[in-house]
Amino acid sequence: MTPAVPAYRRLSVEERRSQLLEAALSLFALRAPEDVSLDDVAEAAGVSRPLVYRYFPGGKQQLYEAALRSAAEELRHCFDEPHEGPLLPRLGRALDRYLAFVGRHDAGFSALLQGGSVVETSRTTAIVDGVRRAAAEHIYSHLGVNGPGPRLRMTVRMWITAVEAASLIWLDEDKDPPVGELRDWLVEQFVALLTVTARRDPQTAEVVRGALAART
Amino acid sequence: MTPAVPAYRRLSVEERRSQLLEAALSLFALRAPEDVSLDDVAEAAGVSRPLVYRYFPGGKQQLYEAALRSAAEELRHCFDEPHEGPLLPRLGRALDRYLAFVGRHDAGFSALLQGGSVVETSRTTAIVDGVRRAAAEHIYSHLGVNGPGPRLRMTVRMWITAVEAASLIWLDEDKDPPVGELRDWLVEQFVALLTVTARRDPQTAEVVRGALAART
Repeated sequence: MTPAVPAYRRLSVEERRSQLLEAALSLFALRAPEDVSLDDVAEAAGVSRPLVYRYFPGGKQQLYEAALRSAAEELRHCFDEPHEGPLLPRLGRALDRYLAFVGRHDAGFSALLQGGSVVETSRTTAIVDGVRRAAAEHIYSHLGVNGPGPRLRMTVRMWITAVEAASLIWLDEDKDPPVGELRDWLVEQFVALLTVTARRDPQTAEVVRGALAART
Repeated sequence: MTPAVPAYRRLSVEERRSQLLEAALSLFALRAPEDVSLDDVAEAAGVSRPLVYRYFPGGKQQLYEAALRSAAEELRHCFDEPHEGPLLPRLGRALDRYLAFVGRHDAGFSALLQGGSVVETSRTTAIVDGVRRAAAEHIYSHLGVNGPGPRLRMTVRMWITAVEAASLIWLDEDKDPPVGELRDWLVEQFVALLTVTARRDPQTAEVVRGALAART
């Protein structure tokens, strides 16, 4: 390793990568992905342009995908809730983390999840869909369901989509209602949707009687 | 029975345009927009290549946008329900038309509404968003609401997004559940979501007491 610029050597490859992704995410929070260049990232991170190119030789597209992957990883952690205590507070805590993520990245959240017009590809769509799928799997597991049927699956996926829509609208509306109210409201909607489906689907009825009824 | 050539002169400009858009839509129903060429459209419509170029000199992008606009127009008509009789059957009839549209265009519905990776632009996004906005406006008007507040707006927009998600999942699941069940289920979800919001929002509470309570 060439000891040309001493400050560079203080960070490990992983740390440097994280620093660059963090800088990129903060830029995506302000601008559409196609309006963020590697030069901008170098400037935001306070490093040289060649360094950014060394980490992301694939250019803008690679950087965007890496940033998306890193955000997706962070989002996945939001849903990583211990299987302990009553169900609805667990869901509430996961939503708290999710909404904190949304609030922190703000416009970048929309840009990342909707994909920029230039850089959206089947790969970026797959990353975002992976997060949705992970969220659904977490929910089935907390509900104690093995092999969710089509009606339960449709209900859970509709709710996840509705939560995404609510997050985007919430950002548009300058984070009104307050985050705590939004979280409780989303939990109540989850219960309401499951209750409606329970009338048509024995598996969902079982879930509502079991996992959800355990709330006090 | 393909008397292709003489038929040219029988169609007016508008009719010809519709015919070409219809052919394009049927192709988008089978393939991603970026995999449909003007040549394919010419072949599907049984007309010459130069004729298609004459109608869509802007090429593929123009054709795609025109097809999207035409589908959007058709979708708008789905929501055009007379203000007569109880509210929920009105919503049910609008959903029947919407789901018939979804079922008829099948894979093309996903392609059109999600935008192809190559051809998605802020303009195509605006066309799709315009349909969502029109659907929301129809709903407010049927609910008898002037100036919906943020909570009612968020609820209606979440439901519209959830309906879109349900349509895409429904196509994925080979149209299970049957369309009549899906329609009733979506109406019930609408009522459930409004009822949950009504606990937090006086305007929505008024709507639930008024328009929705009028159902028998």
